[in-house]
Order: sequence, then structure tokens, then C-alpha cells
Amino acid sequence: MTEQPIPTLSDHSPRAATDQRGPGSIVLLAGGIGGARFIRGLRALVAERGWSTELTVIVNNGDDIRIHGLQICPDLDSIMYTLGGGISQERGWGREGETFVVRDELSDYGVGPQWFGLGDKDLATHLVRTQMLAAGYPLSAVTLALCERWQPGVTMIPATDDRVETHVVIDGEEQGTQQAIHFQEWWIKHRANVPAREFVLVGSDDARPAPGVLDAIAHADLIVFPPSNPVVSIGTILAIPGIRAAIQSAKAPVVGLSPIIGDAPVRGMADACLSAIGVETSAVAVAQHYGARRTFDGQAADGVIDGWLVDADADAGAVAELANSGIQTRAVPLLMTDIPATAQMAAAAIDLAVELGGTSV
Amino acid sequence: MTEQPIPTLSDHSPRAATDQRGPGSIVLLAGGIGGARFIRGLRALVAERGWSTELTVIVNNGDDIRIHGLQICPDLDSIMYTLGGGISQERGWGREGETFVVRDELSDYGVGPQWFGLGDKDLATHLVRTQMLAAGYPLSAVTLALCERWQPGVTMIPATDDRVETHVVIDGEEQGTQQAIHFQEWWIKHRANVPAREFVLVGSDDARPAPGVLDAIAHADLIVFPPSNPVVSIGTILAIPGIRAAIQSAKAPVVGLSPIIGDAPVRGMADACLSAIGVETSAVAVAQHYGARRTFDGQAADGVIDGWLVDADADAGAVAELANSGIQTRAVPLLMTDIPATAQMAAAAIDLAVELGGTSV
Repeated sequence: MTEQPIPTLSDHSPRAATDQRGPGSIVLLAGGIGGARFIRGLRALVAERGWSTELTVIVNNGDDIRIHGLQICPDLDSIMYTLGGGISQERGWGREGETFVVRDELSDYGVGPQWFGLGDKDLATHLVRTQMLAAGYPLSAVTLALCERWQPGVTMIPATDDRVETHVVIDGEEQGTQQAIHFQEWWIKHRANVPAREFVLVGSDDARPAPGVLDAIAHADLIVFPPSNPVVSIGTILAIPGIRAAIQSAKAPVVGLSPIIGDAPVRGMADACLSAIGVETSAVAVAQHYGARRTFDGQAADGVIDGWLVDADADAGAVAELANSGIQTRAVPLLMTDIPATAQMAAAAIDLAVELGGTSV
Repeated sequence: MTEQPIPTLSDHSPRAATDQRGPGSIVLLAGGIGGARFIRGLRALVAERGWSTELTVIVNNGDDIRIHGLQICPDLDSIMYTLGGGISQERGWGREGETFVVRDELSDYGVGPQWFGLGDKDLATHLVRTQMLAAGYPLSAVTLALCERWQPGVTMIPATDDRVETHVVIDGEEQGTQQAIHFQEWWIKHRANVPAREFVLVGSDDARPAPGVLDAIAHADLIVFPPSNPVVSIGTILAIPGIRAAIQSAKAPVVGLSPIIGDAPVRGMADACLSAIGVETSAVAVAQHYGARRTFDGQAADGVIDGWLVDADADAGAVAELANSGIQTRAVPLLMTDIPATAQMAAAAIDLAVELGGTSV
């Protein structure tokens, strides 16, 4: 076995990934729906194999928005509801069996925004959260408290306890002007159909990683980027000062799963986000955007991933394209059609991590 | 006609009560449900007679409570919903066709209180109010804004823009101790079944009447106390520094309607409130509790009313009992069985005011 320049599972961890108890700790950086579904698959895999792996999810909170005085954290809630069994299977977001009485009443008062689908069940979550925040609890503590009900089976930590909001710079009505709108307005109201010129994470300069984030990354046996939006989900988490550096210096291998299959996002409108930052909508371009932590010959590099999974059907060519990039790429089925298929994706990510860690499967 | 020592309608007002346009201005001090129903009857009377009378309601906000971070004003809302056609006819409080999804969800989070029946439609009102208050609007301005939707046909002003809350002193668990609980907890959770030792209007020392309150009282042609709770509704309004004095010096006659018929409150649990302050549950005792503004021979006195309506069936004897009190008492049917019956009560109040004002009917 040749010496591996990248960190290995075995050289730092109390448990290698092939330990029958599984990896001791897997840390994920995740956005909302895509992240939630991947984690559900990973959780199923861990259960199926009887592992005692601890799963920690660092969740994007750049999508957070204050509406009607309520602090709404869409990605935290999507993950919490999905893993807690409360998500609407049909819509993919929000609660199963949701009603919209309050929203309609607010509309009768002439109070908007109307484009934000604030459900009644969902609203209870925001009420509890907002009241706890007002009482002085940090968002990370509030998230733990909400999870006591939902029992997601993973530890969820917001990327930061500080208030951050992704704003989108779009062209103004007058030619040559620009304006910034909240990400949710761009995403939901405009359905990302208005060209984004830039994404600005308002508040990020002074934001600090939430308690536990850096520690989880440092002590992970495996770090995974699920097929979440690389710009406004994982990109936002990496923009919190300290997190990107922690990923770069982490001992664990970092494996990402492409959110792009062929030339389209698996879900959501990641293409509109990628084009705003000048990145092509392709599995290869997203991998290059993340970048390798080490060059193919083991030198330190600027990126954040070691391994990359692309879709076997649509993107098998990416394996060769990325051959000398320092990013070990594997082509596997990447459609999260159901929980078993998603569990297989998670297994592939772990297999790749084992390879990266130099441990035979 | 003998000279009247009490102020008359004709000596100050641009419009006497017998003017075919009706009294120019009627000001009411009101609590929630009872007040709302009486005002609905008065409004019907004014409409039926084609008067252009301006109706101003000064509303108790001692019942106000902050729950789940939301500022709830039960009396303001009861009046607004009743006059705006949104009240639940069956329950008498809250909204017609109400649902309780948010409350049940909060319960699933283990978040109380469970005893407060917070409906989804109702919650939208509280969200709008709380957000406007947080933005710096005073409660009186918020109330106006909410009324733009409900069009109650009256001007509603909270007694004060300052935060006041009626707390109830009850016996503590250990003998000889006492504790204070919020009025709503005593009223709703305990259904006023725990003996109240005292009512304390927290915040009243520094509270000021809301803009328009003193002016409305000073310029009224008639002031009416509907059959609201004399302790925790009208009593609370009178406890806001300046309001009691304004009523005492108002030029308009002040006519009250007994909330007690026989030995029981028409509605609600006024008896439990009266006994806490040492007042018998009777139409006579409540009149004496309010007290006459002038003695029977025209001397200034400490009270706040000039006229009093008691129920003809149950309390006709009160007329004689109060004969020398300085309170002109009339016995008329006082059950607010429907809007026409209530309009008749309002007409009787106006008739008595005309008498008090020295103008022949």
C-alpha cells in the first residue's frame, strides 16, 4: 500500500470505518430537502448495519428569515421534520396534513408576504423557536429543544448561532442598478427565475460557528457533503468564518455527492445559483468548485473535498475528467428515489472514504 | 323645569340627545363580551334611528396577556370580532369557524399553557398586533389598524397604550401565604373558583390613558357603562390614572347598566370579582360601588355615575333603595337576548341621560 498523503481514517480515529461498529462519527454539512433525504438514507444504512455511528449534521441557516416576527429556519426544519417523520411526503417541505388558516387570516389583514407558505403546524415550531430565542437561548440550544419532540436520530447543529441571511443581488428596475432581496424571496417568490448576480451572506463577517461545529468536524471519522446546493446551502456553511478552515484541516476524509446529474440539479434550482457564481451546472464543475484538499500528488490545496460521487448513468465520464484533480471520483447511482436507494448512496460514500483512508474494504 | 345640579346635555353639547341626528357622541367604557354585545345593540339603535352619533369605546386592557410571545388583548378582540361580524356565536368569544391546529402542535412540543384557547384565526390577529408593537406602534394605533379590516363602526381605544395586566392575589399552597397569578389564569384555568383576595393592576401606577381617551370623555354627550364587569373591566379602566377624574369632571351624564340581575351576573363570573373587593352581588351594591357623581341634593361626590339601569323583573326594588343616593335609577328589561332587546336597553340608557340632562323626551 502506498503512503497516503491525505489523512486516513485509521491514523486518527478510535474506530476505522470497517470496524463492525462502523465509523464512530460521521459529520455532514447539509441544506434542507436534499440533505434531509440523504441523511435519512444514511441513518437507515447505519441502522441496517447495526452500527453505533454518531451522526452530526451541521445545517445551513442562511435561508433563515423573519416573517411576521417569527424566526423561520427552513433547512433546520426540513431536516427535523424529515428525520422525525413529520414532513409532507407530497410537497417535500413543511408538515404532513398541514393547514393554512393563519396565513389566510393574515392575508385578510392585508399582511404579507403571501408567497411564503406558512402552515399552521409549521408555525407552532416558529413560535416556540422565536420565544426561546427572545428568552436568550441560542439557536443551537433551541434546535436541541425542538428535536426532543422529533427525535431525528442525529445531532443537528446550525452552522452558526448568529443571525445570518443569504441575500441575492438582482438587477434593479432601472437599467444599470442592482438590488438585494432575501434569498427566500428570490427562491420562492421568483422561483429563481430572476438572474442572480451575487449571493451575499449578510451577517457572516461577524458570525461564529455554533458550539460543537468545529469540534465535530475535528473529531469526525468521515465528513460528507450530501447532494445539497453547493452555493446557498453548503457554500453558506463554509462561509461562516472558521468552518472552511476546519474542513481543510480535518483528519477525516471529506466525500461529496454531486447535486447535479447530467446538466440539471437533482432537485431545486441549484443551476440558477451556480450560474450566478460562474460555475457550470455539471458534476465536474461542482467538484472543481469545491476543489481538492490535496493535489493528486499530495500537496496541500485550497479545496474542501477528497472524494466525489457522480451519477453512474449520466456522469461516468467525470471519473476520468477529475482523474488528476486530487479528487477521487466514483460513479454510482445517485438518484434518491427511496430510502434503500439513498442508503446505497451513503454506503458508496463510506466505501470511498474507506478507500481514501487506505483501509481495505 | 328645576335647575339641574348635574351637567346637562344641552349646556355643553353642540347636539342634545333629542336632536334628530341623535347625541353627537357617546363614549362607553367596556370590557369584552358583555360590553361588545351592548355596543352591538347601541349601534343597531343608532342605525335604526338614522343618527349620526359617533360611538367611542374605551376598552379594558387589564386582561391582556403575553402568551407564546404574542400580545393578546381579549377585550379589544371580543369587541372587534363581535362588531365586525367575526365572533363565534356559539362560544361568544373567539372567531367563528375557528380551528386549533397551532395550539395542538404547541401541546405536542410540551409548550403551554393548555388552558388558553388560542385559535388559529385569532392567532393571526395577535401576530399582526405583536409585530406592529415590536415595530414601535402604540397599541391604540395597532387597534386602529386591525379595525381597518373589521370596520366595527365605532372608534375603539384601549384604556392605555402602556402594558398593564390584572393579577389576582390568591391563597398560596402553604397556609398563611399568598401568591399572585395572571387574571386569565384565574379566570380561565381556575374558572374564578379560587377565592380572589385582591386584584392588582400591574403597571397601572405609570400607565397613562391612551391618546384620545381623556378627550373623548371630556367631549362626550353621553357616557355609558355597559353591563361589563365592574371590577376587572370597568374598574380596571377607571384605575388608569386620570380616567376616573375625567369621568368625574365630564360634562356629559354617566349612565350605567347593571351587570347583575337578581343575585347573579348576567354573564361571566362578576360575583367572584365583587366578593373579592367586598361588594355584594346585587344591582344596588354595584351602583353604590360605582357611586354617585353628585349627592341627591347636588353636592359633589366621589362616584362616577349619575344614572343606573336595573332589571325590571328582578331588581325593581333597587329604584327605591337608591332613591336618595344621587343615582337616578330606572328599572327596564336588561337581558341582552338579541340585538333588538339590547337596542332597547341602549334606548333606555339614552332616555335616562335625556332625563338627567333636563331635556324632555
